[in-house]
Amino acid sequence: MYQTELEAIGQRAKEASYKLAGVSTKTKNDALQAMAKSLEERREMILAANEVDMEAGRAKGLSNALLDRLLLTPDRIREMAEGLRALIALPDPVGEVTRMWTRPNGLQIGKIRVPLGVIGIIYEARPNVTVDAAGLCLKAGNAVILRGGSEAFNSNRAITQVISAAATNAGIPAGAIQLVETTDREAANLMMKMNAYIDVLIPRGGAGLIQAVVQNATVPVLETGVGNCHVYVEEDADLKMARRIVVNAKTQRPGVCNAMETLLVHENAAPAFLPVAAEALRAKGVELRGCSRTREVLPDCKPATEGDWRTEYLDLILAVKVVGDLEEAIDHINTYGTKHTEVIITNSYQKARLFLQRVDAAAVFVNASSRFTDGHQFGLGAEIGISTQKLHARGPMGLEELTSTKYIIFGDGQIRT
Amino acid sequence: MYQTELEAIGQRAKEASYKLAGVSTKTKNDALQAMAKSLEERREMILAANEVDMEAGRAKGLSNALLDRLLLTPDRIREMAEGLRALIALPDPVGEVTRMWTRPNGLQIGKIRVPLGVIGIIYEARPNVTVDAAGLCLKAGNAVILRGGSEAFNSNRAITQVISAAATNAGIPAGAIQLVETTDREAANLMMKMNAYIDVLIPRGGAGLIQAVVQNATVPVLETGVGNCHVYVEEDADLKMARRIVVNAKTQRPGVCNAMETLLVHENAAPAFLPVAAEALRAKGVELRGCSRTREVLPDCKPATEGDWRTEYLDLILAVKVVGDLEEAIDHINTYGTKHTEVIITNSYQKARLFLQRVDAAAVFVNASSRFTDGHQFGLGAEIGISTQKLHARGPMGLEELTSTKYIIFGDGQIRT
Repeated sequence: MYQTELEAIGQRAKEASYKLAGVSTKTKNDALQAMAKSLEERREMILAANEVDMEAGRAKGLSNALLDRLLLTPDRIREMAEGLRALIALPDPVGEVTRMWTRPNGLQIGKIRVPLGVIGIIYEARPNVTVDAAGLCLKAGNAVILRGGSEAFNSNRAITQVISAAATNAGIPAGAIQLVETTDREAANLMMKMNAYIDVLIPRGGAGLIQAVVQNATVPVLETGVGNCHVYVEEDADLKMARRIVVNAKTQRPGVCNAMETLLVHENAAPAFLPVAAEALRAKGVELRGCSRTREVLPDCKPATEGDWRTEYLDLILAVKVVGDLEEAIDHINTYGTKHTEVIITNSYQKARLFLQRVDAAAVFVNASSRFTDGHQFGLGAEIGISTQKLHARGPMGLEELTSTKYIIFGDGQIRT
Repeated sequence: MYQTELEAIGQRAKEASYKLAGVSTKTKNDALQAMAKSLEERREMILAANEVDMEAGRAKGLSNALLDRLLLTPDRIREMAEGLRALIALPDPVGEVTRMWTRPNGLQIGKIRVPLGVIGIIYEARPNVTVDAAGLCLKAGNAVILRGGSEAFNSNRAITQVISAAATNAGIPAGAIQLVETTDREAANLMMKMNAYIDVLIPRGGAGLIQAVVQNATVPVLETGVGNCHVYVEEDADLKMARRIVVNAKTQRPGVCNAMETLLVHENAAPAFLPVAAEALRAKGVELRGCSRTREVLPDCKPATEGDWRTEYLDLILAVKVVGDLEEAIDHINTYGTKHTEVIITNSYQKARLFLQRVDAAAVFVNASSRFTDGHQFGLGAEIGISTQKLHARGPMGLEELTSTKYIIFGDGQIRT
């Protein structure tokens, strides 16, 4: 029933994307500035729309955590505007010729960075994604089709109206920023199959949403975010450093994808390390769930089940496992990890090398907290998500990851013989 | 019914891929040499298996074109072996650190090239794909699961036995090269959803096969090959050059994806160009199908229908359309093209710039034949296909496109505050 409506959106986005590919960096930056300004100027209208969503959320009995994600405040609107302004300073990836060479027959062949075209974003409750995604897509020269969650519908609509109008007034083609104005699941499913209009889909949200997109989409998907991250403490680790990193990785912000979910400890380090680690973690309110060998050292620890090795708690809960050696740690990580972020704490040069080489993940750390897997922390600027797949982009995805390339070839009449 | 069998293949491939990621370039090159040698030594066994397929193909009434694709000869086996040997000289992409930098907090962050892991290849009749794909995947450090067409089953099985045994004897982990030993469609469909074991799927074959994979796969797909390519002759083109390129693009090898399928001609060039182009093309046996304006100049030309603009003939047939200007040519290409290869013939600097910028395709040429879109012709070495999608790889996909990256981070106890 939404087919016609969605195809119209897709067609507008496609047309806008062809124009947008040729828009200058200056115009894009002016638009980002105008969008930021407009968000601040239309603050009351956006807050009023958000209040409608909050009211409905409370009536529906949404959890406090969900309500908090949904909530907009003057501060949060200012942060969204600041996020747009931060994009202005980042280099425009479009147009960079990454390589150019000449063939023996005189053909000159170059590889130039171009926008992906039309990006579809399917996301959940947080309305700030609307602004972040629109800003990043715009700076990289892409049209965007946003499909947010039903809880944030009024907020997303108000925000999109404001930023889309501001962008158009600043010279961005109409249709470059559009919201799908229905939150029915059928509309999302149709969107996932719009290969004619959408070049790439990026789901942002929990594991359920991401899996639904991966399972249903025929449009290529950039999978983001689920992080069942491990920290492995080797027998030769500096245990003070290990404790500091473990506490940071678990508790500095437990609800995010780069937080640690399982702690692995070498059997020779377990007797000395587990009691001090447990004390420090419990002081921060962390519940531990251990394997049988962990519970020999920490008898008051809850037992862990097979399910715990697979769980991304996003909460103050930590699974703990004692392993016989590096090999067992790597096997555990490659079996249960989600290829996001993995950490070893060690003083052994060779063990660090082996871990870096053999662990299959977007980011592999030696002696630092998993919490650093983040576009800003890596020094890459704003990110649209953290890719846990291997195609196209792996790890934090910024402006460059929102582009493709094309070959441009300059000839003088060459033919193939 | 094939679930258990396929999962066993997947698991073996995954395990092999973890080991293969750490195998040295020398061992991989030795294996390629051994595979080539073994192909030549076991030639009679392979030819006998091929004869079984040929016999069945004739009994089934396969077309001569299909039978020719299926046929193996001593020469073709030598070419397959030479293809493997050519890979030895290419640089190993695995392990290249493409960038490394240090953050203000002292974290050293590097991006290193790693294999994709397990690659699934789903392909049709030509048994040489078995060797090409296995060789490329191996050199880039990937395990491969091959699923060929039913017509070539015996040939593919014989080839896989030979090269897989040779690779294992040369030190490659067992399971790195496997063939799915059933050609039932159900098996292919299961394979397309084996996200736990297969990192990337590459379909190789006709538009039907590729669309089936794009529509059904939940594993990320690298889409290859369909080429509805255009050559556009501007009003200011050198018409002799245009004729030479047009004839080459259409007739040098009409059955391949980078051959021209539609000729676009500026209305001011049509009266002078179409008669000479038609004469040269018809001399090579090409059938023309023109729009109404083409037929004003070439009254004996068959009329083209809407379907002709969308058709990849892969044959000595050419659609011809007269357009009013560059704008109309670009619109036609972006509407009907398959984002493969597009060519402009012009002497106008500004028109060349506009065409290069606004045409959305993997390769955009000025004044050269479309037939150059090819890994070897670009100087990139052997290719596994030509990507027409925008994620990960665009254009000819060689060894580098069969890799991913991971971030490696060296710390000294850094935590996030």
